[in-house]
Amino acid sequence: MAPFTHSFRIRYHECDAQGHAFNAHYFAFFDVAMTELWRAALAGGYQEMLDEHGIDMVVAEASARFLGSARFDELVDLDVELIRLGTTSTTTAFALRRADDVLVEGELRHVYMNVTSWEKAPIPDLIRAALAPFSRAGA
Amino acid sequence: MAPFTHSFRIRYHECDAQGHAFNAHYFAFFDVAMTELWRAALAGGYQEMLDEHGIDMVVAEASARFLGSARFDELVDLDVELIRLGTTSTTTAFALRRADDVLVEGELRHVYMNVTSWEKAPIPDLIRAALAPFSRAGA
Amino acid sequence: MAPFTHSFRIRYHECDAQGHAFNAHYFAFFDVAMTELWRAALAGGYQEMLDEHGIDMVVAEASARFLGSARFDELVDLDVELIRLGTTSTTTAFALRRADDVLVEGELRHVYMNVTSWEKAPIPDLIRAALAPFSRAGA
Amino acid sequence: MAPFTHSFRIRYHECDAQGHAFNAHYFAFFDVAMTELWRAALAGGYQEMLDEHGIDMVVAEASARFLGSARFDELVDLDVELIRLGTTSTTTAFALRRADDVLVEGELRHVYMNVTSWEKAPIPDLIRAALAPFSRAGA
Repeated sequence: MAPFTHSFRIRYHECDAQGHAFNAHYFAFFDVAMTELWRAALAGGYQEMLDEHGIDMVVAEASARFLGSARFDELVDLDVELIRLGTTSTTTAFALRRADDVLVEGELRHVYMNVTSWEKAPIPDLIRAALAPFSRAGA
Repeated sequence: MAPFTHSFRIRYHECDAQGHAFNAHYFAFFDVAMTELWRAALAGGYQEMLDEHGIDMVVAEASARFLGSARFDELVDLDVELIRLGTTSTTTAFALRRADDVLVEGELRHVYMNVTSWEKAPIPDLIRAALAPFSRAGA
Repeated sequence: MAPFTHSFRIRYHECDAQGHAFNAHYFAFFDVAMTELWRAALAGGYQEMLDEHGIDMVVAEASARFLGSARFDELVDLDVELIRLGTTSTTTAFALRRADDVLVEGELRHVYMNVTSWEKAPIPDLIRAALAPFSRAGA
Repeated sequence: MAPFTHSFRIRYHECDAQGHAFNAHYFAFFDVAMTELWRAALAGGYQEMLDEHGIDMVVAEASARFLGSARFDELVDLDVELIRLGTTSTTTAFALRRADDVLVEGELRHVYMNVTSWEKAPIPDLIRAALAPFSRAGA
């Protein structure tokens, strides 16, 4: 069981001439699900991290494996789990499902940055605690 | 004859399940052509307007009429002409063509803003002069 | 009161360097809301029109007026109302709101096409009846 | 030296609130460069593979490593090299550069499909020969 799932429908303009969501868009879906996870984790969501902690995050690595494909107007579930909670970075695993059928698996590695210096910054303890419920045991 | 034309190819992910460029993307194409017009008008392009003049522009109105449709990988020409050069706003006309065949016609009205106050700002004389060659006579 | 409203959040990648949703994306939002209206109107949604009636629709005209702008992660309401229900075309009005504050107003004119011949086709009576509850009186 | 390079400018709407191209878009850039490689490889480009050979390709795996970031209006070079030319799949490596500065590295694994059966299909000899000049020695 993933600790967090975001459900949404595939939009028409996200689908290509082959009739399914274009591969690059899945990385945008991962980002959308991450934003929803922040909303679940912090009262003020992602913006709270910027405003209260002066910390932003950037994507350092992204990968996906396409086992199937989602089609226009399909309702899909996107599971999210932090699989590594490092000092200045996190790795998050994603699985996009049509019911029990996993269509796309992916990972994003985010690095946390001080928004003033744009240097790597340790994830604040409050943020770390907020992410813990969405993290794999021992992450 | 349009005073400025930007030529480009339709990208795969810009095409929808009907096999042609999705309608909303044409407005992004208009924006891309506008950026190219700025490059032709000002040595430093659009960024020069921000950096040297502290002026940015926002879209106030957008419209398009779809007579045909562009397909994946087609090389299209996008004609650009300023049809009104007002005190704090401009109206620009666009015509996207496959050779002589006009596929989409559109207009964008931009309002010029002071980047500090985000209040409407008069278009600086230097910018006005730079845009003149791309403007319809009497615009 | 609009007969149909679709509510959604602005996604991070839909926002530009000015920090608000890029103008072209609002036309994609209109399309998304239209899909949701089809779901409310027909048991099988938009796909039912294609599959059961052999009718698709294409955008013939699109326009928008930007009075304000939506920002990342904002929850916005998009009101939809058919303001003209013609023989082979419809005109739909959209108003994107932050609570009571209208940020963007727009219109889309769709033309209905036979999916085999790609000729204009009259809107089938069943579709017309399904759209009636979402149409302005006398549309 | 990469066997193929596609150069292009970063578009305004591809940049996010952090001011650089959004991570998912780089995968779309890879796809665009792939289309340009097909144009260089085959007289009829990517479409020739579909029309003449009845073969299409789908992305099975995608990955990217972000070392830097491209900004609005920057002219970037995207190097492309086939690093594996298998029986029914290819792996292509990408490096997006600002002059000599590599900003993003990535890979796409494509699987070739029969467009009628949508089963995996061997890459036809003519296609294989056309791709050879863009392949790493021994790929």
